[in-house]
Amino acid sequence: MKAHLPLGIFDSGVGGLTVAREVHRQLPCESIVYLGDTARVPYGNKSREAVRRYALEDARFLSEQGVKLIVVACNTATAFALERLEEEMEVPVIGVIEPGVRAALEATQSGKIGIIGTYGTIGSRAYQDALARHNGDIEIIARPTPLLVPLVEENWLDHDVTRSVLAEYLEPILSQGADTLVLACTHYPLLLPLLEREYGDRIRLIDSASTCAAMVGEMLEAHDGKNPSSATSRIRLCLTDDPGQSRDLIERFLGDRASKPELVKVEKD
Amino acid sequence: MKAHLPLGIFDSGVGGLTVAREVHRQLPCESIVYLGDTARVPYGNKSREAVRRYALEDARFLSEQGVKLIVVACNTATAFALERLEEEMEVPVIGVIEPGVRAALEATQSGKIGIIGTYGTIGSRAYQDALARHNGDIEIIARPTPLLVPLVEENWLDHDVTRSVLAEYLEPILSQGADTLVLACTHYPLLLPLLEREYGDRIRLIDSASTCAAMVGEMLEAHDGKNPSSATSRIRLCLTDDPGQSRDLIERFLGDRASKPELVKVEKD
Repeated sequence: MKAHLPLGIFDSGVGGLTVAREVHRQLPCESIVYLGDTARVPYGNKSREAVRRYALEDARFLSEQGVKLIVVACNTATAFALERLEEEMEVPVIGVIEPGVRAALEATQSGKIGIIGTYGTIGSRAYQDALARHNGDIEIIARPTPLLVPLVEENWLDHDVTRSVLAEYLEPILSQGADTLVLACTHYPLLLPLLEREYGDRIRLIDSASTCAAMVGEMLEAHDGKNPSSATSRIRLCLTDDPGQSRDLIERFLGDRASKPELVKVEKD
Repeated sequence: MKAHLPLGIFDSGVGGLTVAREVHRQLPCESIVYLGDTARVPYGNKSREAVRRYALEDARFLSEQGVKLIVVACNTATAFALERLEEEMEVPVIGVIEPGVRAALEATQSGKIGIIGTYGTIGSRAYQDALARHNGDIEIIARPTPLLVPLVEENWLDHDVTRSVLAEYLEPILSQGADTLVLACTHYPLLLPLLEREYGDRIRLIDSASTCAAMVGEMLEAHDGKNPSSATSRIRLCLTDDPGQSRDLIERFLGDRASKPELVKVEKD
């Protein structure tokens, strides 16, 4: 692995920037190329075939930018396309599911794990299957929580409505005795302060952004791939459509860590 | 206009089915071809250029099916592409904005009109500009209400959370004295029962589905285009991606009025 090359991270939109932010926080000297496929966001309501095609185009774009490793910072793309990407790409590919699953298995004592995410992620059964592959005795309480992304996008991060929605969504998970909760969506880390305050004494919260960033660090160590520079680098931000209303989200996710967004094309004619 | 031909209706997804349902209710003998561009839904967060390209592809698909009139049952596509579609298409094109605007102007007595819709629709200023074109003295209170679509999709149509969200969203509109509220999003007609119950005595509710369907009826009358058959027809449902989780929404929007969804391709290679 060529240590001086950047890391590539892609997502269907800007949600994966929570992963980029965590990678940047944990590995500040690594350059990052972030691709958000904002022209086709979201992937969560698209078919397996469509998502696989989009993910391949996204990964090829990053590959053309000369990255040393690709992070699939999108749950749907990880669920539907990770294996295919691992076959096709010449650099290592890390999905966002496996790190969260491993961390949840280390954290649980009751053996009951809750999972929340979009309809697409929960319906794909990707987390459920990955947990079961590691440990068939784990009891899983999975629930789609589709209101949380728009609540984050509304910036209602500490709002009574958000509290009520979380209470309704988490009730069956808590009442069935889960002691660990996987936040299986890249938007959810922004709800961590509220979740920690309201539920932190009852349930261990596993967010995929920080677990995924930790795995990137391990992978770089293992391949002698850490950038030897000690300068703090920035995030190059590539989007497939004008960010429009997402500008504000990008700002909230990344602050001044990123370059001005570049408009790029990933679809093959 | 060839009266025996079907009507064409398109939307970025399945939300426009509320328009198809109203057209079918008001004009039960008209055959309908409905195209939902579910592979690229939603349009509301895409750029003007992207939406214009998608809308042209959608309208051309309907044109190839031999329709006598095209309804753009998508606020974003109407805002960004209606003029272009009117130029390009050989059949009349009706957008979803003008009918709602006219009905709101007829309804208001205070001269203050509220508008709620997605970020895309409100940000496009399409309703605001159309209102101002008709009457420059109208005071407009426009507000993006992005949580309402996922609340409808969750089927929380009579839920305390929905009541709280509506209260927060509508407070500034009511307190500024609007007596008429335009529901500028095709999902919102499903919230009409709750809105009527909670706010019906304070504000006139204008939904774009029924106003748009009424305009289709007028246009057919004017062009001698009403289907002479007296048999109740069905809705032919064409989607650009597998409906997946939207199956349930289609069922709730349409009941048994529609055929089994067909997968179609509208993108030109």
